[in-house]
Amino acid sequence: MALIVQKFGGSSVADVKRIKRVAKRVVETKRKGNRLVVVVSALGDTTDGLLELADAVTDRPDEREMDMLLATGEQASVALLAMAIHKLGAKAISFTGPQVGILTDKMHTKARILDINTSRIDRALRDGNIVIVAGFQGKTETEEITTLGRGGSDLTAVALAKALHAKQCEIYTDVDGIYTADPKIVSDARKLDAVSYDEILELASLGAQVMQSRSIEVGKKFNVPIRVRSSIRRSKGTLITKENPKMEDVMVSGVALNENEAKITIFKVPDKPGVAAKIFKTIADHGINVDMIIQNKTQTNTTDISFTVFKSELKRAMDAVWKASRAVGAGQVVCDQNIAKVSIVGVGMRSHTGVASKVFGVLAKHKINIEMISTSEIKISCVVSGKKGKQAVRVIHREFGLGRK
Amino acid sequence: MALIVQKFGGSSVADVKRIKRVAKRVVETKRKGNRLVVVVSALGDTTDGLLELADAVTDRPDEREMDMLLATGEQASVALLAMAIHKLGAKAISFTGPQVGILTDKMHTKARILDINTSRIDRALRDGNIVIVAGFQGKTETEEITTLGRGGSDLTAVALAKALHAKQCEIYTDVDGIYTADPKIVSDARKLDAVSYDEILELASLGAQVMQSRSIEVGKKFNVPIRVRSSIRRSKGTLITKENPKMEDVMVSGVALNENEAKITIFKVPDKPGVAAKIFKTIADHGINVDMIIQNKTQTNTTDISFTVFKSELKRAMDAVWKASRAVGAGQVVCDQNIAKVSIVGVGMRSHTGVASKVFGVLAKHKINIEMISTSEIKISCVVSGKKGKQAVRVIHREFGLGRK
Repeated sequence: MALIVQKFGGSSVADVKRIKRVAKRVVETKRKGNRLVVVVSALGDTTDGLLELADAVTDRPDEREMDMLLATGEQASVALLAMAIHKLGAKAISFTGPQVGILTDKMHTKARILDINTSRIDRALRDGNIVIVAGFQGKTETEEITTLGRGGSDLTAVALAKALHAKQCEIYTDVDGIYTADPKIVSDARKLDAVSYDEILELASLGAQVMQSRSIEVGKKFNVPIRVRSSIRRSKGTLITKENPKMEDVMVSGVALNENEAKITIFKVPDKPGVAAKIFKTIADHGINVDMIIQNKTQTNTTDISFTVFKSELKRAMDAVWKASRAVGAGQVVCDQNIAKVSIVGVGMRSHTGVASKVFGVLAKHKINIEMISTSEIKISCVVSGKKGKQAVRVIHREFGLGRK
Repeated sequence: MALIVQKFGGSSVADVKRIKRVAKRVVETKRKGNRLVVVVSALGDTTDGLLELADAVTDRPDEREMDMLLATGEQASVALLAMAIHKLGAKAISFTGPQVGILTDKMHTKARILDINTSRIDRALRDGNIVIVAGFQGKTETEEITTLGRGGSDLTAVALAKALHAKQCEIYTDVDGIYTADPKIVSDARKLDAVSYDEILELASLGAQVMQSRSIEVGKKFNVPIRVRSSIRRSKGTLITKENPKMEDVMVSGVALNENEAKITIFKVPDKPGVAAKIFKTIADHGINVDMIIQNKTQTNTTDISFTVFKSELKRAMDAVWKASRAVGAGQVVCDQNIAKVSIVGVGMRSHTGVASKVFGVLAKHKINIEMISTSEIKISCVVSGKKGKQAVRVIHREFGLGRK
């Protein structure tokens, strides 16, 4: 019998009706002859409710106590799902993360999984149970309750799939798979049957967020096949898996749009070794995440440096950048919030040439000016004017023939 | 430094404002130089909310899963209280029942505490922490989460006080102590400074419910001084302690009224050995609790048997009694819901004579007819007509001079 790990997020178990629907679906999978481990998040907006309570109590909650508080959300949902499965006449047993030996480090609120002792789950599976595990949580060696940070339930599912040698890890969500582009932008965007870990990592970090990058990294590291599918519709979803030769037949897998970044430019940066390092260290010390960085030497003794940051961090970033600019004797600093980043991703780029020139060509043809370019082995990102972002996605999508046939 | 265990019930931590108030009070006690272990129940009506959820999912929730679900309530409140204490600048750390080694048997939803391994609490206390423990919960030897049933947080507090050799266990509640009678019935009812375990056990089971009987039994068994006091007002409350000679100076400690019982009478029960046993076995087999039982032989070969049951169980009780009556060849069965039980309690009864006659005398003087009488070493209970119950309490209270001087 194949072992499958299924993960249902908070929106899939937002209320009693949905819990019952998940129970029905889980029992169906079990009755098809599979062994099943189900990972569940907290009910709907439970976590937000708990955060609000903590917020009302104190402005600086202790992280250990925060984990203690937040872990209750998932514990409640596993118990309720077990009850709903019992009601359908199937055997099920729920466990907290600590109970099934999900051992983590001590970094409360963003702990990393160190090890999983699967003996208790193995025993429960042998007894014929559907095993339900609270996502997002674990324990330290000294039995402290920890949580795994945003998207932690995905991580629990993938890590369990690895530890239990599961055939597959299924992530149920409110979209029915991964698309060549956001269907809200590109009407004929096509659902991908399969995509590689690397591609989805690029797509996820670029705005097409379906799963947390950390979980996909773990999936990639241990080669766990991950299937993203709808918790409502019965489609097959998209399989995230290791690269295979067939994938390389396709030059481009998808086009993503990110409108959450802003561009900062520092003019007249002294062109000496160590200056850029100093600037970006100051920015990092302020806890600002920097994405694309472009340096272009245009003058004799100075250079201009541009980079993008999250719009939500722009104000703090500008403070840090001004400080850094003065410290290194650079010139003016300007920012532009009206940008969009369009990224084209595909493992096929490795074996196909001419993808970049095709991208630049189609953008030029539509009079979309490229402000910044950054490329990796399987990705080309272009920053364009904010109001041209959606159009850029559409024309590239069409140019590479990604739409439904 | 004296070690004190304090317990705050759900109404004391019903919202953020009250959690902060509890935190303030706890920190005050700590700053007076005490070591402190604080036991907390779930926030306000959290438990009811969880029960409703379970109820919406299934009509017969598995008890193991129920414990999993309900234990989240207390876990959330200890974390929030720890945060509130931190906010006041004091050191505090929260633990679940399982984390502090409250070992129970496997009787889910009504587990009994078998042992408490105090090493983790000891360590946290040595580190200067106010230690906050989730009430109502424990774990089995195999790390299953259990709950202790209604009033379980009181039990956690008393058991911890015993295990930690605490000087005192303080139960904070919404009344400011134990009174000679219900102040709603007797306007000059007086708060008792001290009362014995046995007296409070009789008073509690008779309707003056302040604490669960089980917790008081544990307190009595291990001689843990328990102080019941208001979580709002700053009075000393009432000390529940072992009997002392001074207590015996007082004939009667309190008068309790119970209007929740109904009387059932079986007429013409064959007067043969084993018949009563057969009747009450049938009733017990139906899960019906029987309180007072009176048998009075008035005819030659038959006898009438009366007993009281909870009104809430009356319908089921009558079905069982009819069955039992037919089986033993007894006669008619009648019930009377219009009764009240008045109980007079006091360890002084052991050494003073004439308490019973004084009770009967004052009731007769006020033309209150006694339908049933039952006595123990420290208690006299009389069943009277329902509409005379409150009057009976008042006249007995006055006759024994229990009111404020």
